[in-house]
Amino acid sequence: MSAPLPFGEWMACVQERVEKALARHLPPAEAIPARLHQAMRYSCLNGGKRMRPLLAFAAGEICAASGDRLEIAACALEMIHAYSLVHDDLPCMDNDVLRRGRPTCHVEFDEATALLAGDALQTQAFLLLAGESLGDPAAQLEMLRCLARASGSLGMAGGQAIDLGAVGRALELPELELMHALKTGALIGAAVTLGALCGERLSGEAHQALERFSRRAGLLFQVVDDILDCTASTATLGKTAGKDSAADKPTCVGLMGLERAREFAGQLREQAIESLALLGGRARRLAELTDFIAHRPF
Amino acid sequence: MSAPLPFGEWMACVQERVEKALARHLPPAEAIPARLHQAMRYSCLNGGKRMRPLLAFAAGEICAASGDRLEIAACALEMIHAYSLVHDDLPCMDNDVLRRGRPTCHVEFDEATALLAGDALQTQAFLLLAGESLGDPAAQLEMLRCLARASGSLGMAGGQAIDLGAVGRALELPELELMHALKTGALIGAAVTLGALCGERLSGEAHQALERFSRRAGLLFQVVDDILDCTASTATLGKTAGKDSAADKPTCVGLMGLERAREFAGQLREQAIESLALLGGRARRLAELTDFIAHRPF
Repeated sequence: MSAPLPFGEWMACVQERVEKALARHLPPAEAIPARLHQAMRYSCLNGGKRMRPLLAFAAGEICAASGDRLEIAACALEMIHAYSLVHDDLPCMDNDVLRRGRPTCHVEFDEATALLAGDALQTQAFLLLAGESLGDPAAQLEMLRCLARASGSLGMAGGQAIDLGAVGRALELPELELMHALKTGALIGAAVTLGALCGERLSGEAHQALERFSRRAGLLFQVVDDILDCTASTATLGKTAGKDSAADKPTCVGLMGLERAREFAGQLREQAIESLALLGGRARRLAELTDFIAHRPF
Repeated sequence: MSAPLPFGEWMACVQERVEKALARHLPPAEAIPARLHQAMRYSCLNGGKRMRPLLAFAAGEICAASGDRLEIAACALEMIHAYSLVHDDLPCMDNDVLRRGRPTCHVEFDEATALLAGDALQTQAFLLLAGESLGDPAAQLEMLRCLARASGSLGMAGGQAIDLGAVGRALELPELELMHALKTGALIGAAVTLGALCGERLSGEAHQALERFSRRAGLLFQVVDDILDCTASTATLGKTAGKDSAADKPTCVGLMGLERAREFAGQLREQAIESLALLGGRARRLAELTDFIAHRPF
């Protein structure tokens, strides 16, 4: 058995694979209605970090998941993520003009097209995950339920709604954690679970360990996001920096200050990696990803 | 065997059953985030015509489908339909203030909540249809694909996008038919197919007959909508009358005039009913529904 790829190469490899798969699994840019399909592709095929696909592939290593199934799961996750960004950026939400270093979808196209592109990206995610030849139909249904639960009103969309209601209000840490757990954590968790569902069934214990890991990694991801929002530049982030605090949105940094937020991130990183102990060497990529999330520059 | 219910009673019965099922299958109004859940329920539980559920139940009669499965399919269809109405009514789309005789979702709540409520209703539809205990998982996946295809960029959302691009442009009949086929016809067709998938598998011939029926009934529905938009009052419709022609949107009436649009509707009604011939008495409800669609006052 050859030595595993260095982390950076593994990551680049997964990112490239997902980029190509997304290009294949989105309707072609010239299919009617072309403007809608262009907007969908514009919003998905723009070299994001692909954090959710990376988590799915990393979790897949724990249970010898097939690359083809991971690819489908990764694309579905990324389509849901892209739809949420397109809608979040709309004028009635965050009204943002910059995303991943480019004009947001409604700026590049128009509001109505961005609304429909987000809608259709969500649908495309479920269409893809319900596709034929993914293997065991019962497991496939489980994946669909997992993705839908994580994205709906008791997951990501619900977190967005709490966020809306929280602007200008002082939140306590537990409330802020709930918001983050839904808004970002739910889909991060779904990425790990979906990756694991692509392979051999895990023991109950291993499954619980992964769930603990997901909760911690999801919160870590958001805390680091909060820190970067107030420390990194717009150019580095590829999106408008400082906008959460400017919009008087509740953030970890606002609540506990930068230093304590950094400490909190450090603790979450440790706890996330601890929860992988039971899984041994198979969880190596997940541990590496956790470090990457904790120290990412953008 | 008792005599079948008169059509009006059958329809009321299905409508009531679907209303109750929707109330059960939507998250409770008090679940966090409550405002989002209230907006979802507001947009779904408001006594629409339930045309897609009626079509699903009517198609289910052809293949002895179970009521419980039809109920799930009907709710999923209605959630997708409700999401599309909420998003269509937004200021960046039709900017409408009245729907089913009440303020539209973004007027009653706010734009951001309406956007998220539409998003979450779409997710809820797929979550419901991917639910446990619906029977054969392979058939369930087929239903999911059918619903996703009909709602996505090559279905309903695509029709909306064509509609957007057509404002102020003269369309020829084939183009207008394509727009209607996607915008309304795709989900109408999915309602019939989903209903049929809830029962015993149909022969290829019967399946094709149903597909022909769906195409014609879907177009009929939209042509009658166009006619009503310019002949009925806002009070009767429960939504703003005359808005399509006011917005310079392409409609059948605009293209061919009221009289020829009425003749066209009459032809489509006949053709739709003709395509049911092969299915015999089991298609009775579908034929009755076609008459109802052709002559509906709103």
